[in-house]
Amino acid sequence: MKGLHIIADLYHCSRDKADGDLLTSAAKLRSLCAGACEAAGLTVLGEHFYQFGGADATLKGGTTGTVVLAESHLAIHTWPERDCATLDVYVCNYTADNSQRAEALYQTLVDALGPGAIQVERIWRGKDPAMTKKVA
Amino acid sequence: MKGLHIIADLYHCSRDKADGDLLTSAAKLRSLCAGACEAAGLTVLGEHFYQFGGADATLKGGTTGTVVLAESHLAIHTWPERDCATLDVYVCNYTADNSQRAEALYQTLVDALGPGAIQVERIWRGKDPAMTKKVA
Repeated sequence: MKGLHIIADLYHCSRDKADGDLLTSAAKLRSLCAGACEAAGLTVLGEHFYQFGGADATLKGGTTGTVVLAESHLAIHTWPERDCATLDVYVCNYTADNSQRAEALYQTLVDALGPGAIQVERIWRGKDPAMTKKVA
Repeated sequence: MKGLHIIADLYHCSRDKADGDLLTSAAKLRSLCAGACEAAGLTVLGEHFYQFGGADATLKGGTTGTVVLAESHLAIHTWPERDCATLDVYVCNYTADNSQRAEALYQTLVDALGPGAIQVERIWRGKDPAMTKKVA
């Protein structure tokens, strides 16, 4: 279960890129995420993406989804009305060090979403169970 | 996108409880997670769970899954050979403060898995976009 979890909040995402509707299209976001996982050398086991409706008829809704990986998961949620998205990439190192794959996946998604500001944290998860204190 | 993300690594999970095979049954884990989300007042939009095979014929494999919520997501991965699991509960506060719902969901899952030790971190995600620095 040891592995890298990248937790990022993306602000001021670009809406004038070729894929500027990534924030409002579950189909495009699903395609991007699945392709980016595979390009990074990670194994997609399944996924679920959902398209929200807009707050009114003039607004497009956000999207939300997760990809279940053999190496753990990717989760992404968008808020088009604020040009924001949250991104989680967690990969465990069960059979190999997947940290570089996590970083590659993260960078691909950041490049696609084009944020103007990012709040990101990297957490190294998991200890050797023998190093944890077992409560009676 | 503001909201609470509970990140927990669970060690020494109990295998002698009534649901001691939660670590090795995707079906049971899926049922637990979906029910716990709904009991906590969260809205399940979809999910995907996967059953791993064991390393050899004498071992049961772990399970992994995510639940896509209207409020964000739940992700869980198990390592039965180490009696461990990782757990992520992230709920945003788009229309209401869902922190207590996140805590209730987290507690239900911890109670079901019965860990002897927990490494947990609570991250408050999201800022007002106006408070972030937009890079030109």
